[in-house]
Amino acid sequence: MNWISNSEILIVGLGLIGGSYAKGLTRLGYHVYAIDPDAEAVSYAKENGIIEDGSTEADPKLIQKADAAIFALYPSVFVRWIKEHGNQFKEGTLLTDVTGVKSCVVYEVQKALPKGIEFIGAHPMAGREVSGIKNADERIFLNANYIVTPTEQNTPEAIEWCKSLGKLLGFRHIAVLSPEEHDEMIGFVSQLTHCIAVTLMTCNDNRHLVDYTGDSFRDLTRISRINETMWSELFLMNKAKLLEQMDLFIRELSEMRTLLEAEDREGLKEKMKLSTERRAYFDN
Amino acid sequence: MNWISNSEILIVGLGLIGGSYAKGLTRLGYHVYAIDPDAEAVSYAKENGIIEDGSTEADPKLIQKADAAIFALYPSVFVRWIKEHGNQFKEGTLLTDVTGVKSCVVYEVQKALPKGIEFIGAHPMAGREVSGIKNADERIFLNANYIVTPTEQNTPEAIEWCKSLGKLLGFRHIAVLSPEEHDEMIGFVSQLTHCIAVTLMTCNDNRHLVDYTGDSFRDLTRISRINETMWSELFLMNKAKLLEQMDLFIRELSEMRTLLEAEDREGLKEKMKLSTERRAYFDN
Repeated sequence: MNWISNSEILIVGLGLIGGSYAKGLTRLGYHVYAIDPDAEAVSYAKENGIIEDGSTEADPKLIQKADAAIFALYPSVFVRWIKEHGNQFKEGTLLTDVTGVKSCVVYEVQKALPKGIEFIGAHPMAGREVSGIKNADERIFLNANYIVTPTEQNTPEAIEWCKSLGKLLGFRHIAVLSPEEHDEMIGFVSQLTHCIAVTLMTCNDNRHLVDYTGDSFRDLTRISRINETMWSELFLMNKAKLLEQMDLFIRELSEMRTLLEAEDREGLKEKMKLSTERRAYFDN
Repeated sequence: MNWISNSEILIVGLGLIGGSYAKGLTRLGYHVYAIDPDAEAVSYAKENGIIEDGSTEADPKLIQKADAAIFALYPSVFVRWIKEHGNQFKEGTLLTDVTGVKSCVVYEVQKALPKGIEFIGAHPMAGREVSGIKNADERIFLNANYIVTPTEQNTPEAIEWCKSLGKLLGFRHIAVLSPEEHDEMIGFVSQLTHCIAVTLMTCNDNRHLVDYTGDSFRDLTRISRINETMWSELFLMNKAKLLEQMDLFIRELSEMRTLLEAEDREGLKEKMKLSTERRAYFDN
C-alpha cells in the first residue's frame, strides 16, 4: 500500500498517541477509522471529526476495510489483540505500531500474523505528560524522532512505507534500528531517565522544597508525573536492557561519589569536562 | 542602608551573575561600580553602560565609596577577598553575596569583618548555561527563587534590606533559611541534579544517540554543560550534605532496580504513583 489519498486507515487504540495519529492522518485527507473499548473516546473522536467511523469492538467490517492499521496499545494488549484478530485483515494490509519497546513485541506479532499481512514496527518518540484522545495533538510529532525497527521478515517496501508515514506526520528525523538496538537505546535515553526522575521524587519527601527549586530540579523531574500502568509495563518488557543501563548509571554515580568523598577536585573536574564536551553534540 | 536612588553599590566579580546584578541595579537608577581582575570585563561593562566605573584591583576609593557591596565570586575567592580587603569598607556598609553554598562561607566572612560592617548571605537561584558579563541578563531573575541565609549575627534591618534587593531585582519568591537548611536543600535540588546530569553523560559514550533522543534525555542533561571549576568547588564546599543526598538517591534507585529485577509490577507502580502525586505540587 502506498500513501495515496483514498487509503483507508484503521487506528487501534485512541489514546493520546493513537488520537494524534488519527488527527494528523485525517487532516492529510485519509479515511481514518478506529477501534477502542472506550465508548467515550470513540464518540469524542467521531463528533470532533478526528475519525470517520469507529467501534468499541474488533469490528470485522472495520478490520477488513483497512489498507493499513496503526496499533497504539499497551505492549501486552497489542500482542493479545493480534493473536485474537490479526488474521481478519485482508491480504496485503500493512500494520505498524507505536510501542515503546520492540524486541518482545515485534517478533511475536510477526509470528502471529498469517502470510500476506506484514507488520513493521515503529516508535514515534513523542508524548505529553497528559493522556487520552482529548489531549491528542499531531503537533507533538513535529521535530520529534521516529524509529523504524525492521526484522529479517520485513520487505523493503514495507520499510519504505513505514518511513513515509513518519515523514507525512512531520517527524524531524527518521531512523532505522534493529529491535535490539532500539531497546538498548531506549533503555538509556528514555527508561533510565524516567527511573531517575521518579527516584528524585521518591527518595525523600521534597514537597516542602517547592519554593526553593530552580529550573534544574524542574527539568529533571518534569517526566516524573508518569502513567504507572504503561511505564511499569515498558520497564518490565525491557527488563534486561534497562537493568544494564541502571547498573552502568549507578556504578558511574558511585564513582563520582568516591571522587567527592576523597576530595579529588581534579577527578571531579575531568568528569565535568567530559560531560560538557559530550553534551555539546546534543545542542547542534 | 535603604534602597534609595542615590545609593552607591559596588559589585565584586563581573561574571554572568555579577553582571546581571549590575545591569538590573543600573537600570533601576543606582550608581553601580565594579571590581574584577578581568580588564576586558570591566571595560565592556563601562562601555555598555552597565557600570559607572570599575577597576581590575581592589581599589580603596571604590570600596570606601560603597553604601552596599554584592559579591559574585567563587566561594573560596570570596572568603579570601574579604580577609584581605573587608576592613576597608566604611562603617555601616551592608554586604551580601550570590554564593551557591552557605555554611562554609557565611560564618567565615562574618568573622573576618570588623564590627559595623554587616554581611548577610543570599543565594539567587538563577543562572544560564553560558557565562561571563557578555551573557549577563537581569531577566534571568524574573520568576526565580531568592534565598536569604541569616545567622544570629545579623540584624533584622540587614535581613529586610537583603530581601528588598531580591524584590527589586524581580525574583518571584523570597525565602529565608539558615545556612545549614540552605545547604541541605541545595545539595538535593541543585547539586544532586547536576551530579545526575553529568553522570548521564559520562556513564557511556552516548554521542551516537543524538539522533534518537527525545525531550526527556535533553531535559535531564541540559545542565550537564557545566563550569567544572565552579561546580567542583561548590560540591567540595558542601561535601557532607551532598554525599548524604547522593547516598539517599543511590539507595532509592537501587531499590527500584531490585523491584524491576524481581518483576514486582505493583512495587514499581507504587513508586510511580508516589512520584506523580509529589510532582503535582511542583506544577501549581
